[in-house]
Amino acid sequence: MSYDLVIKNGRIITAGEDFVGDVAIAGESIAALGQQLSGSREIDASGLYVIPGAVDGHVHLQMPIADIVTADSFEQGTIAAACGGVTSIIDFVEPGKGQDLVEALEWRRTEADGHVVIDYGLHMTLLDADPLILAQVSEAYDQGCATFKLYTAYPHFYLTDDELYRALRAVAEAGGLAVVHAENYPVITEVWKRLLAEGKVETKWHPYSRPAVTEAEAVNRVLSIAHLVGAPTLIFHLSCGEAAREVAYAKERGWAAFGETCPQYLTLTDDIYEREDMPGTWFICQPPIRGSAQAAALWQSLATGSIDIISTDHCPFSAEVKKYGEQNFTLTPGGVAGIETRLALVHNFGVLAGYLTLNRWVEACCTLPADLHGMTRKGHLIPGYDADIVLFDPRKEITYSAEMLHSNISYTPYAGITVKGAPVTTISRGEVIVEDGQFTGTRGRGQFLKRRYE
Amino acid sequence: MSYDLVIKNGRIITAGEDFVGDVAIAGESIAALGQQLSGSREIDASGLYVIPGAVDGHVHLQMPIADIVTADSFEQGTIAAACGGVTSIIDFVEPGKGQDLVEALEWRRTEADGHVVIDYGLHMTLLDADPLILAQVSEAYDQGCATFKLYTAYPHFYLTDDELYRALRAVAEAGGLAVVHAENYPVITEVWKRLLAEGKVETKWHPYSRPAVTEAEAVNRVLSIAHLVGAPTLIFHLSCGEAAREVAYAKERGWAAFGETCPQYLTLTDDIYEREDMPGTWFICQPPIRGSAQAAALWQSLATGSIDIISTDHCPFSAEVKKYGEQNFTLTPGGVAGIETRLALVHNFGVLAGYLTLNRWVEACCTLPADLHGMTRKGHLIPGYDADIVLFDPRKEITYSAEMLHSNISYTPYAGITVKGAPVTTISRGEVIVEDGQFTGTRGRGQFLKRRYE
Amino acid sequence: MSYDLVIKNGRIITAGEDFVGDVAIAGESIAALGQQLSGSREIDASGLYVIPGAVDGHVHLQMPIADIVTADSFEQGTIAAACGGVTSIIDFVEPGKGQDLVEALEWRRTEADGHVVIDYGLHMTLLDADPLILAQVSEAYDQGCATFKLYTAYPHFYLTDDELYRALRAVAEAGGLAVVHAENYPVITEVWKRLLAEGKVETKWHPYSRPAVTEAEAVNRVLSIAHLVGAPTLIFHLSCGEAAREVAYAKERGWAAFGETCPQYLTLTDDIYEREDMPGTWFICQPPIRGSAQAAALWQSLATGSIDIISTDHCPFSAEVKKYGEQNFTLTPGGVAGIETRLALVHNFGVLAGYLTLNRWVEACCTLPADLHGMTRKGHLIPGYDADIVLFDPRKEITYSAEMLHSNISYTPYAGITVKGAPVTTISRGEVIVEDGQFTGTRGRGQFLKRRYE
Amino acid sequence: MSYDLVIKNGRIITAGEDFVGDVAIAGESIAALGQQLSGSREIDASGLYVIPGAVDGHVHLQMPIADIVTADSFEQGTIAAACGGVTSIIDFVEPGKGQDLVEALEWRRTEADGHVVIDYGLHMTLLDADPLILAQVSEAYDQGCATFKLYTAYPHFYLTDDELYRALRAVAEAGGLAVVHAENYPVITEVWKRLLAEGKVETKWHPYSRPAVTEAEAVNRVLSIAHLVGAPTLIFHLSCGEAAREVAYAKERGWAAFGETCPQYLTLTDDIYEREDMPGTWFICQPPIRGSAQAAALWQSLATGSIDIISTDHCPFSAEVKKYGEQNFTLTPGGVAGIETRLALVHNFGVLAGYLTLNRWVEACCTLPADLHGMTRKGHLIPGYDADIVLFDPRKEITYSAEMLHSNISYTPYAGITVKGAPVTTISRGEVIVEDGQFTGTRGRGQFLKRRYE
Repeated sequence: MSYDLVIKNGRIITAGEDFVGDVAIAGESIAALGQQLSGSREIDASGLYVIPGAVDGHVHLQMPIADIVTADSFEQGTIAAACGGVTSIIDFVEPGKGQDLVEALEWRRTEADGHVVIDYGLHMTLLDADPLILAQVSEAYDQGCATFKLYTAYPHFYLTDDELYRALRAVAEAGGLAVVHAENYPVITEVWKRLLAEGKVETKWHPYSRPAVTEAEAVNRVLSIAHLVGAPTLIFHLSCGEAAREVAYAKERGWAAFGETCPQYLTLTDDIYEREDMPGTWFICQPPIRGSAQAAALWQSLATGSIDIISTDHCPFSAEVKKYGEQNFTLTPGGVAGIETRLALVHNFGVLAGYLTLNRWVEACCTLPADLHGMTRKGHLIPGYDADIVLFDPRKEITYSAEMLHSNISYTPYAGITVKGAPVTTISRGEVIVEDGQFTGTRGRGQFLKRRYE
Repeated sequence: MSYDLVIKNGRIITAGEDFVGDVAIAGESIAALGQQLSGSREIDASGLYVIPGAVDGHVHLQMPIADIVTADSFEQGTIAAACGGVTSIIDFVEPGKGQDLVEALEWRRTEADGHVVIDYGLHMTLLDADPLILAQVSEAYDQGCATFKLYTAYPHFYLTDDELYRALRAVAEAGGLAVVHAENYPVITEVWKRLLAEGKVETKWHPYSRPAVTEAEAVNRVLSIAHLVGAPTLIFHLSCGEAAREVAYAKERGWAAFGETCPQYLTLTDDIYEREDMPGTWFICQPPIRGSAQAAALWQSLATGSIDIISTDHCPFSAEVKKYGEQNFTLTPGGVAGIETRLALVHNFGVLAGYLTLNRWVEACCTLPADLHGMTRKGHLIPGYDADIVLFDPRKEITYSAEMLHSNISYTPYAGITVKGAPVTTISRGEVIVEDGQFTGTRGRGQFLKRRYE
Repeated sequence: MSYDLVIKNGRIITAGEDFVGDVAIAGESIAALGQQLSGSREIDASGLYVIPGAVDGHVHLQMPIADIVTADSFEQGTIAAACGGVTSIIDFVEPGKGQDLVEALEWRRTEADGHVVIDYGLHMTLLDADPLILAQVSEAYDQGCATFKLYTAYPHFYLTDDELYRALRAVAEAGGLAVVHAENYPVITEVWKRLLAEGKVETKWHPYSRPAVTEAEAVNRVLSIAHLVGAPTLIFHLSCGEAAREVAYAKERGWAAFGETCPQYLTLTDDIYEREDMPGTWFICQPPIRGSAQAAALWQSLATGSIDIISTDHCPFSAEVKKYGEQNFTLTPGGVAGIETRLALVHNFGVLAGYLTLNRWVEACCTLPADLHGMTRKGHLIPGYDADIVLFDPRKEITYSAEMLHSNISYTPYAGITVKGAPVTTISRGEVIVEDGQFTGTRGRGQFLKRRYE
Repeated sequence: MSYDLVIKNGRIITAGEDFVGDVAIAGESIAALGQQLSGSREIDASGLYVIPGAVDGHVHLQMPIADIVTADSFEQGTIAAACGGVTSIIDFVEPGKGQDLVEALEWRRTEADGHVVIDYGLHMTLLDADPLILAQVSEAYDQGCATFKLYTAYPHFYLTDDELYRALRAVAEAGGLAVVHAENYPVITEVWKRLLAEGKVETKWHPYSRPAVTEAEAVNRVLSIAHLVGAPTLIFHLSCGEAAREVAYAKERGWAAFGETCPQYLTLTDDIYEREDMPGTWFICQPPIRGSAQAAALWQSLATGSIDIISTDHCPFSAEVKKYGEQNFTLTPGGVAGIETRLALVHNFGVLAGYLTLNRWVEACCTLPADLHGMTRKGHLIPGYDADIVLFDPRKEITYSAEMLHSNISYTPYAGITVKGAPVTTISRGEVIVEDGQFTGTRGRGQFLKRRYE
């Protein structure tokens, strides 16, 4: 039996295994794992790690916010993702107030279909708890939006506790997963007002405006309500040990609670809000980047599993847009770019630093994100699954700069950081789309992922 | 030197001591602790416990709610208190919307002064976070209202998180203590609606409508916000282990967090909502009475000190009023009576059952309530303090019935319960006001306590 | 490419994966995982679980103790193992006092080689901390004994704390793993003496003679000393929550601490020491079988991973031998049989009862035992590894009796217990050795496993 | 009524109270607490703290060890104690091997009676678990030795676990309290040997020779065995957070476990073993002084109560004797002096630094030591108790030097340390024995305390 493509002699690393062998691909799927397999095309992976394509469950491409929009289009953003070893992303549908969910989904799909270069899913944002909208949750689930984004922050997005209850209940009844931005916005707003009233408008005050306790409180609250209605819930972008502890406590009690963190919280520290070589506004995101002890606590939580996965919350705004907040940190559109750098950053600062095993690295970046988000053919190197595979060279060294990255902004938060180990080849559904770090795929080849839980 | 009154040869038990001796009184104050002291009048306390008069930091006398009012007037309620060994109570000022706090205090004092038979203080209720009102918090403090009641439940009382932040901040700046009813009311309302929609209107559904997790969540939230603004905070009427655990966790972190529970949560269990011999509506209170494992958890928390004190939340409604909720549990005015029974119930079910030492019993019922609430002359048997003293007979047995108690309602939640140990003599500022269980004092002799923190 | 043997269309379940597919075998090794693979021989596994052969890291075959010996020979015991889905066992070398370790190993191998029907390894027992013996630890490691058994119980085996220190240090320096029987024998002996002096000689006193606290204490002590010298350590046969907690605490501190438990502690409870239908002496083992709350705690620890693996401590004594202790429980040779029943018992009482996932079942019974014990080709279904595979029928029901099991004793502790799910086919290094529950292999085909850590 | 002596207008601070008033003394006892009391003699205590005389439950006066003896005689040591505000000490009886306990007690009393200037008790040391000796434990208890010292360290003192079991059982049956030196001596000896073999003989290696884990392990072991036999147990000289945690864990489980620490562990850190201005040998004690994080953990444990009390383990060796270990730290007689400095050190570094309240300071240094050790007339300021009282001037500053202290050695570990707050007057059984820091009492006035539990 001859396969279409065989990746030969790599060190195959999955969430649970680690061995040298071959991966054979037939058409778009993994056909076999073995030794001495042969195929029409063969790629020598000697000395490389062969891992499942990374899954980034949290990105914001061409996302409008007021009259601006994030800098990466679906095309540009997914090219950057692919170059970083990512083979699936999940972006968001943000319906208009009162807009039919499925209609909004279809409209959002028109922005992505034909443009994305890798497969993608969409979280459905629930802006409020309008009964008419909540009645559509099941239908949205059936259309492949298995996950629902809820916010406890931001005007227009903020849900009160009774709204949370109703929205989470609708998600539970549809069989979906809630994914939640958890911060206590009313309290944060009060803290803001005090800071601004005291003339504390500089970027360095950003982390002071969103204390860790306001995040941990919201995590406890959201998970408590979710437990009451039986909604499995993933807390997005945990930034501190206090919040991670609340997720751990929920798990101890047997609640269906999960946690995500992001590289910016793991590898950067709050001194970046006062650096001289880069404007602090570039690093403004919500929750804020915190101190080094918090980063260590997050790594520890990842190691023990109380935080499950690592995504990016990729949300790039141009340097010009970031300037909006120069005179008042609260006016800065929040978000950092990172869609291309996650796999290597986590390898370097997590695995090489001794926090995570290679298996846990793959689990947190590739396998569990696929499982948690209801991707039924992604994240694993097993026969029958999509042939989404990355070759990762553990000896390759990269020093990051905006120029070498593919995001459509003129800067990167990781500029000047050198990592050892980088993805070199990306295969999506059997097709090599990145080779030697160069994107070789075609626009629009990516497909919408209908996600569901079994 | 001869004193006015000497209590001789009793077993003097305080929060920290336990010895046989005499307590001498001069005028209204304790003059000396000693042996072989002599006085114009002497009371033989051989075989009795001599303890500081009990302090009940949480009662609702002649409290209007819509068109009804709690059944005990200040006179009747304080007579019942005195008969139960209580020498100080704290009731509430509930200002009208927008009403000046000090004006409301003065008005409330007109209802109590001249009527109360023991000394009393008043908590000031903050209905909202109106800046004009919050600006009066310091003045209210200066008038002796050192403690401020905040609610996270009930319409007209419920504070949102930003209001909580501002109100707690005002309390912190005034140097006061926040006392808080902590339940997540928006969520509870949703649970209610579901239950009623499902036809679950009977009293037995009351505890289901206010799950422990909605209480614990609110405790965590309130204490988190209080910590942010630096407000020492006492959580009222903890009813479950989950909520007590949040207070314990706050203490571990060094927060100024305190906890109160009540005899109804310690000695009754939720089967009373379905008893045949008494209507379940009599027992409706918020939070609800829960299961026996929760009562055991509360005793344990009292023993270790994560719950600090025991008050009563005495809030008696007549049997007629309680019937309002017969067809719909949510319509029942909440509250149970207990102003007279606390000391003996805690002695019997706490001390004799082995949960608490005699010292801890006195500490939780008499000493710490005085200290926490800023009473500078109460709760201790030390020279110079008010001569508020109770003689407690550890051998006396009582079987409770509504008839023998002095509350102005026709029933008691503790009917049929027999306790061993009961207060027999109550002395308030040097005057014997209860003797052999009979009230012998005079109406209006009680004084308003100007409370403050030093 | 045609393989020698293909197991087709089974539900392949490993520690990390769960999918339907084929496993192809070439010679003695797994050649490929795939779909539509073909081979000279094909076995249809539709509806069956295809899992790695189970690994039992703790058995005592033909073990002499004074003038008796355990009832199963290497041949009979490994046949029973194979019938229970086990493809590797680890037994023990017990050198004589002062005997050269490698000589003792070779001698023990002569008892097994040529007799065993599956592969086997040997733990090396360290009887004392004689410097001459400890100097041989590295050599024993090089001969494939990567694991060293230490006892804190039993005369002749008991190591004092300084001996433990020296022995653990030698293990650490050799790069091995310590496996430890942890009970405080000096204290247990004192408890015994008291019981016997009080005439408490019946079997029911056995669990009283070895309180949980004496086990937990020893676990803490052993792990503390092991940590001081840097020796990775696996605590054998954890029987109670207190002891499991000590392992969990060591893990929290980052120590290389691991835990094992056994089916008798998970599925039986101490009422068996007073059953009427079977003599209690049959169930005497060390540590003793404890109450149902302890069993639940062990399941919970397995679920969270603080206990890593499940072995059997298979140690069968004939019913005659077990009678030795009828008049004095301390005279009963300790040990229960279980080499054949583990996989199905854990499936039924662990997976079907909801404590463990299917993945965790495989991990605890097959994969982690192989990894922890240094088997470099066992426990995983990955190309290149030994083709040790079990087909498990989740629908098959079995009611245990001594007759149907292959151990050479006339009774089984699990008599009358019905389990759903049972192994039906066992493949060892590519050879089908159990088919339809019947052993079809040949004596002596098993090989000694030279184990090591990489 | 006129008293013999009245201490007027002091700030009376006890474990539970804090008020301004008078303490009246009649004969040797406290007669009354009050205001405006008058006496034949009156002392003005305005501006001073009036506290119960401190109790030091752990001192070694004229203790022979091989051919040397601790430097302070009973006379000299108790004078130093009195000058430091101590009114009761407990020293040790160390019987010879096989010596009758009561005989040894009587002999030891001949060394103290007629010499001590304050009251004293004696712990009875149990050197082994010889049945003949253990049979005398009850009689020793009846003679006033209510507490029994057990060691898990030192040759001649070390008890194996079975000996611990038997000795603790004897203590439990007598109704006594075990006080235990808990370190794993067999393991420490192994660590020593390694260090010495590697040429690590300098004093700085002392803390490395007794790692925190060897102390914590022993604490867990001792408390586990004590719990098995029902012996209330006080762990002596806790030096690290790990060990304190084991005491806390025992308390959580409801065990009768208590903890003591000493000023050297609270106020010094291990850099003293390498200071240039003083020889490190002066600071050698067992367990060793550890790092600053450990000191902080001990203060925290004192604040929460998991460590109950503070004693000194006063064990002064002359500078000459300390030189024995200059070339080999293991040869240094262990022990530091501190009998005179505890009250002021704990006030300065505990109370003024914010770790302890004034009440907790008194509780830990005066009240609980008396209660825990069975002194029925000490440690409290209540009528009928011994008039053991200290006046402490919170404004007085002292800079410590060997010259100003009364111990019979030429150095002090606290040289150069300035504290704010110091004892100025000491009253023992109604007699002023220290005035303005000068000892004014008479030799031999102290009495043996027959201690017991009620």
